Amino acid sequence: MTRSLKKIKIVFTDVDGVLTDGRLIIMNDGPYGKVFSTRDGQGIEYALKSGMKIYWITGRKDASTENRASELNCGLVFTSGADKGGIVKNILEREGVDREEAVFIGDDIPDLAAKPEVALFACPSDAHPAVLAESDIILNKKGGRGAVRELIDRILSEKK
Amino acid sequence: MTRSLKKIKIVFTDVDGVLTDGRLIIMNDGPYGKVFSTRDGQGIEYALKSGMKIYWITGRKDASTENRASELNCGLVFTSGADKGGIVKNILEREGVDREEAVFIGDDIPDLAAKPEVALFACPSDAHPAVLAESDIILNKKGGRGAVRELIDRILSEKK
Amino acid sequence: MTRSLKKIKIVFTDVDGVLTDGRLIIMNDGPYGKVFSTRDGQGIEYALKSGMKIYWITGRKDASTENRASELNCGLVFTSGADKGGIVKNILEREGVDREEAVFIGDDIPDLAAKPEVALFACPSDAHPAVLAESDIILNKKGGRGAVRELIDRILSEKK
Amino acid sequence: MTRSLKKIKIVFTDVDGVLTDGRLIIMNDGPYGKVFSTRDGQGIEYALKSGMKIYWITGRKDASTENRASELNCGLVFTSGADKGGIVKNILEREGVDREEAVFIGDDIPDLAAKPEVALFACPSDAHPAVLAESDIILNKKGGRGAVRELIDRILSEKK
Repeated sequence: MTRSLKKIKIVFTDVDGVLTDGRLIIMNDGPYGKVFSTRDGQGIEYALKSGMKIYWITGRKDASTENRASELNCGLVFTSGADKGGIVKNILEREGVDREEAVFIGDDIPDLAAKPEVALFACPSDAHPAVLAESDIILNKKGGRGAVRELIDRILSEKK
Repeated sequence: MTRSLKKIKIVFTDVDGVLTDGRLIIMNDGPYGKVFSTRDGQGIEYALKSGMKIYWITGRKDASTENRASELNCGLVFTSGADKGGIVKNILEREGVDREEAVFIGDDIPDLAAKPEVALFACPSDAHPAVLAESDIILNKKGGRGAVRELIDRILSEKK
Repeated sequence: MTRSLKKIKIVFTDVDGVLTDGRLIIMNDGPYGKVFSTRDGQGIEYALKSGMKIYWITGRKDASTENRASELNCGLVFTSGADKGGIVKNILEREGVDREEAVFIGDDIPDLAAKPEVALFACPSDAHPAVLAESDIILNKKGGRGAVRELIDRILSEKK
Repeated sequence: MTRSLKKIKIVFTDVDGVLTDGRLIIMNDGPYGKVFSTRDGQGIEYALKSGMKIYWITGRKDASTENRASELNCGLVFTSGADKGGIVKNILEREGVDREEAVFIGDDIPDLAAKPEVALFACPSDAHPAVLAESDIILNKKGGRGAVRELIDRILSEKK
């Protein structure tokens, strides 16, 4: 069974617990924050330059996430209750990208709905046990602490 | 001695150090923040869907906590100096839930006052030593980093 | 050589790196924040109830620190360039407390100036190497993650 | 091959992942924050007092970074797309400091462009693998958690 990332053209990623460390900083005067990684940001920049596409898929409509996705020029889709599998399928059709060219990185149970629609399912090292058990690739890095960068590095390295 | 979680219908949880990692981020212009976990939030959603009840009990009246409890549809009670045992007892009566169907998760000494009122007392792995020594269940996860999710996962798994 | 904490009546503590984890969260719109621990806060409450006195001594005049010290009913002194040893000496005289009844907890080199003025010098486990080398007591907990609570617990436990 | 830091007169440092822990805290109402270390701040104060020069070089124009650099009296240069090597070279000429007297500390691939322009290249223990592989000095501390302080301590210690 091969785990080659050489053919990957599109990366789908969950947000909370993957691009963030799963923390919600809630201020007593209303605003809240999420913790992203500059190391992931650098990796996303490299991936886009190389021609790959990156989509963020999250259940939570959220200005923190919108700001960061926009700064990094990534597509962002809110599930609005739809399952992540259907969303991935639609994006692949619209982009004309094959299932065999897609990877999804997620950390919690709702992400597993996307697994049948992609070639490979990856997760951070600190994913939920049910996700660790189902993933094709378990990264060494944690969510929000370089897991997405590690996945991108592996893809770019195999493409060389 | 059994530690079965099969009969649990209600989860009481402390806030600081259990649903948060015990940090207080204090800004120099006034506001302060607390650090919650999206992984815990997902678990609470699953628990409520399954019909369980969840109450947060804390000594500190606090808008961060109010916002997060409200977003997650959990009951929230401020102790206002009352001991946590009496509060748990009152809620159990009002809800018509038996002591044998209740679990409390706490991390510090004031939480131990609730122990006689519930079937099982649980704590995060990084609880205060006095609480670690008294707990029926010591979770693998830390406070604010998935301890509540782990407890909920165990309950739901035993109920299957 | 004894390290008894039984006689301690007053705890002097540095702020950054001891009561906080040494982080400065600097926002791009001006405010900044520091990270305190609710577990330490609970310990300070117990110490004050038992009749002990607690003074925070810091080089940095700072509203985050002022707010937290005030919430916890602790004395707070800014060094304003003075060395911490002289400040400790003055407070001991004013309070009528003996050198043998005082402990100082610090994490970095400027704190060592207070060492000759107290019976025992303590530090968090993640103190600067020069401080680890000079301390009478190296706590198991890190700064801002329970080191002050651990020191207070030890004092209260020896007093029993 | 010697790794002596005795002759170092100038320290160039990247910001995100070196002076910060690489986190971006993004608030849902717009502002974002970065996490600096007070321990690093103390080291920078000692370095400047000893007559060393410190320049921060970063790709990202950012008010958080400007505020912290200004508070610590460090030079700050935004690359604005230029490579870090050219910037280092220009500063060395302007300051009249020799390549043999300069060290650069970085954590990610864009920082490696500065390596040919300095005597020694250092990185935090949690740098990107490509940077760990190319560095002359791998520090024990992580970015934003004392790596810069450790480098400064080593320099000052060798100068004694």
